[in-house]
Amino acid sequence: MSLTKNEIKFIKSLQLKKFRDQHQQFVIEGEKVVNELFTQDKFSVKKVYYTEEFDVNLIPSNLESKLISNKDLDRITGFKKANKILAIANFNTISDIDFDENNLILILDNVKDPGNLGTIIRTADWFGITQIIVSENTVELYNPKVIQSSMGAIYRMNFHIKSLTNVITEFKNNDYTIYGAVMNGKNIYKTDIKAKSVLVMGSESHGISNEILNLTSDKITIPNFGKSESLNVAMASGILLSEYKKSEF
Amino acid sequence: MSLTKNEIKFIKSLQLKKFRDQHQQFVIEGEKVVNELFTQDKFSVKKVYYTEEFDVNLIPSNLESKLISNKDLDRITGFKKANKILAIANFNTISDIDFDENNLILILDNVKDPGNLGTIIRTADWFGITQIIVSENTVELYNPKVIQSSMGAIYRMNFHIKSLTNVITEFKNNDYTIYGAVMNGKNIYKTDIKAKSVLVMGSESHGISNEILNLTSDKITIPNFGKSESLNVAMASGILLSEYKKSEF
Repeated sequence: MSLTKNEIKFIKSLQLKKFRDQHQQFVIEGEKVVNELFTQDKFSVKKVYYTEEFDVNLIPSNLESKLISNKDLDRITGFKKANKILAIANFNTISDIDFDENNLILILDNVKDPGNLGTIIRTADWFGITQIIVSENTVELYNPKVIQSSMGAIYRMNFHIKSLTNVITEFKNNDYTIYGAVMNGKNIYKTDIKAKSVLVMGSESHGISNEILNLTSDKITIPNFGKSESLNVAMASGILLSEYKKSEF
Repeated sequence: MSLTKNEIKFIKSLQLKKFRDQHQQFVIEGEKVVNELFTQDKFSVKKVYYTEEFDVNLIPSNLESKLISNKDLDRITGFKKANKILAIANFNTISDIDFDENNLILILDNVKDPGNLGTIIRTADWFGITQIIVSENTVELYNPKVIQSSMGAIYRMNFHIKSLTNVITEFKNNDYTIYGAVMNGKNIYKTDIKAKSVLVMGSESHGISNEILNLTSDKITIPNFGKSESLNVAMASGILLSEYKKSEF
């Protein structure tokens, strides 16, 4: 079957935040990540478009699906090179924050780069983190670059967009220790991070905003042994999460 | 002054590896990274092109430079949005490997993504690593995305392109312990990495090649606490380097 003009227009429109917000839907592409989509229950799938190179038996029979030509997939892909299948999924209903989890909660204040956000989600999932809370000025979860660089970890992460001052206050009231990653804080290698804790990471250019920094209990830093001025925010997040999990050994 | 057609053609050609190799020259862009270029001695600068927004006093007087219009800078930039200055520098003469350094040496086997390589260089510099050795099938150092994501750390790193089997054998002969990062090795959190050591990281898709893996003394792994199948290679490198440096505390 061929794609209709309206289908092409609609799917391509979802490359833009404005239309994702309007329709509350987003695009997931590529064999591996879409296959994982079929096995999860966080996001409901609206429709899939696949080429004959995709194994149709992997598509759940209750889903609306359409076999299309490679040429048509090339018309709707956001990739440089389309990869067999493209799915449209609905935004998920965001679950409530669990203020009782005996784990580290990650808070992102104004992280702007979608590749960084995706890498942070993927790495946080690796380290068993289940809740990420982001400020309203952090890049959107449904940005295609976030989806791709998270490599399916978005399916496992509880992701909340919140006013950070309120939420941090509530974590404090629930006995979490609030750590803020800064340039001149306590050496992370000499700090025992509490089991029930919140780690706040700031923007790539400006770090954590002052208003939020004032709410932290401990300012922590990865020591610098060289001359680079900073670490990438995703890298710093991963190293700090590694330090947190390491304490279990 | 206006750019000549030949200048435009030449500078744009340096976006491609073929012409970089032919001329043994590459492009560095943007105020911050070019300013750092002026203060280092690894790469000699052939010429700089700057707009009137750039502070001309920052350009060393012995350098050949040309004031150009914003419109002309837009013609030659590899950026989405040009940033005040573009420099052409010569490839550096690669110094000899120091087989006697009491530090960790990083070896990259077939790392393909330029953003990953740049991030690895930036992070390695943060942790005081001074030597990175890469296989011939690893992405080229002078790729513009490597230059940009390394954020100036290329100026401080000794970077060698070598046949890895020979070089690893030589490190072994010089009493280095050779660690390979794999999916099912020893828990890094329970491993004391030796001071004089080599860390081998493999390709994003296939890990370390078997030939190289056979030369390692210890296979190490960052434990997985979640369901993501892998960590990004730059992230894994950063976490392992952090573990190495941590032992100093």
